[in-house]
Amino acid sequence: MAEMVRNKQVLLKNYVDGFPKESDMVVTSDATINLELPKNEPGSILTKNLYLSCDPMMRNRMTETYEGAYMDSFTPGSPLVGVGVSKIVDSTHPDFKKGDYITGHINWEEYSVIRDPQFLTKIHNTDVPLSYYTGILGMAGMTAYVGFYEFCSAKKGEYFFVSAASGAIGHIVGQFAKLAGCYVVGSAGSKEKVDLLKNKFGFDEGFNYKEEENLKATLKRYFPEGIDIYFDNVGGKMLDAVLPNMRLHGRIASCGMISQYNKLDQPEGVYNLQHVFFKRLKILGFTFYDFLHLYPKFYDLIFPLIREGKIEYLEHTAEGIENAPAALIGLFSGKNVGKQVVAVAHN
Amino acid sequence: MAEMVRNKQVLLKNYVDGFPKESDMVVTSDATINLELPKNEPGSILTKNLYLSCDPMMRNRMTETYEGAYMDSFTPGSPLVGVGVSKIVDSTHPDFKKGDYITGHINWEEYSVIRDPQFLTKIHNTDVPLSYYTGILGMAGMTAYVGFYEFCSAKKGEYFFVSAASGAIGHIVGQFAKLAGCYVVGSAGSKEKVDLLKNKFGFDEGFNYKEEENLKATLKRYFPEGIDIYFDNVGGKMLDAVLPNMRLHGRIASCGMISQYNKLDQPEGVYNLQHVFFKRLKILGFTFYDFLHLYPKFYDLIFPLIREGKIEYLEHTAEGIENAPAALIGLFSGKNVGKQVVAVAHN
Repeated sequence: MAEMVRNKQVLLKNYVDGFPKESDMVVTSDATINLELPKNEPGSILTKNLYLSCDPMMRNRMTETYEGAYMDSFTPGSPLVGVGVSKIVDSTHPDFKKGDYITGHINWEEYSVIRDPQFLTKIHNTDVPLSYYTGILGMAGMTAYVGFYEFCSAKKGEYFFVSAASGAIGHIVGQFAKLAGCYVVGSAGSKEKVDLLKNKFGFDEGFNYKEEENLKATLKRYFPEGIDIYFDNVGGKMLDAVLPNMRLHGRIASCGMISQYNKLDQPEGVYNLQHVFFKRLKILGFTFYDFLHLYPKFYDLIFPLIREGKIEYLEHTAEGIENAPAALIGLFSGKNVGKQVVAVAHN
Repeated sequence: MAEMVRNKQVLLKNYVDGFPKESDMVVTSDATINLELPKNEPGSILTKNLYLSCDPMMRNRMTETYEGAYMDSFTPGSPLVGVGVSKIVDSTHPDFKKGDYITGHINWEEYSVIRDPQFLTKIHNTDVPLSYYTGILGMAGMTAYVGFYEFCSAKKGEYFFVSAASGAIGHIVGQFAKLAGCYVVGSAGSKEKVDLLKNKFGFDEGFNYKEEENLKATLKRYFPEGIDIYFDNVGGKMLDAVLPNMRLHGRIASCGMISQYNKLDQPEGVYNLQHVFFKRLKILGFTFYDFLHLYPKFYDLIFPLIREGKIEYLEHTAEGIENAPAALIGLFSGKNVGKQVVAVAHN
């Protein structure tokens, strides 16, 4: 007998200009959902959504249109979409069965009917927390992996700087750099975060960028010899301060520019690009979506590190889908420490 | 019997701020030189200097100091130094003999005594004009070659844009791109230059950037599908206009930023770097000095192209060392078309 339940959802209310607010989204219980799939509709799955990933780039999908758009915008009145982890509660698809766990792009709602589950990935390793698939085993981990191992060509003893260092990607990539023998410094937005960098993640140094008046001079202080590798999560002013501090043949991996997402129509100027030529720098903009084929190689590296406790992974969990809008907004004021996750349910 | 002659020289008068002027240099006949080397000083050569190369990056060496300096500054009261072609008129070095031609860094003067000639390159192929070694067979040609063949990964049918397109590097690299089957557009600073791009160098299109009010819109007009490869000679505003016009996985080769050299303390802002991430671009700053080992490979390519008339090479020659300061300054107001050379003597 089919059981109908309320299905809480996080809807986009209107397209966003500038800094996003909680009120740009609404959490509703208006929808209901049948917890059994109709048997005459093969090829679908019904999921109970457990963990939702909050990612800075979701901000761009909240804009109606902007130059250089690289992902579809969300639709006002519809749920947001992001990476998540779900449990299958019913299935009419031969490859998925009740009780399986999946990860992939899912709606921000408690339950979903998914008619094209072939785009989702079945989770085989469940000896680690399932929420990890929204972060260290998902986009954040792969972004750190691809950027660091495929592009940075880090050598032992090189000077490595990462911005947003206590964030989802930052604290992972900083540890990769330490494992490779680099001297690692990170910037973050509070004393608490900087303490974590040094005391929990094993960075050599860290600083609170909000307390620094002259970022160029700050970087010079932390890197008197200059920076070989900059892992850029923020763009804007920090990138501008890094450029004159780069060493000959330095590399800059750019996996996002959170500092610019709320002002895409009036971005900050970067004035020091002549150093790209002076120092013969390489800059790479990248997204892990172009490197999905590397997942097996990445898992070969990351699972042992996690299981043997050789990498610290920090999650910042908001409990309950009601708190999802605040969790997402918090990314842009730096409220999160580590990977921001929303736990819709734990099982 | 030793013959003493006057030795005209171009000296730097004072370090330069902002736009350089002819009066920042002085041409003097004060020095004299003995046209025979003392026989008891082995290991030297005496050269008669024939062709001097005028290069935008020489401007940076006229500044006392600037952040990111990548070459030594010139010394006020001493001759400028640049790439040149010379004939050996006397030698006490076993590897060089009277009548040999050499190329390398030489002083801006009529005759030079060179005590470390091992840093110079002997010219073996003299069936092409010797002045070519200051350009298409020297720095300009190698810069075009390294940037294009080692970095751009051009594929047939790709959209290629080059700035300063009628300049020393630009008109060569544009022809490389045509040979590779690209659609090639160049920007230049006069109607005459744009005509050359289309009618002499075989570019598909060209435009006069000085007549365009909105460079971003101009590029959109010439590249409705976007730009795959931008060969950047100028930096600044043009780079900023190119970024939003780049296609997914585009490449930007940066071999200099002439637009910024006269205002290194107040460079222009670049506002569109978020497209580095949106379009997953690669940017490479490079100089041919890091790729000197590729000279043989480059010569294998370029000599047949020159001998078979498959590449057009344009020189802009100032006759006489007296005109060297004006020739060098002219680079920054775009007076030259093609490679700017000073002919001190033709043999």
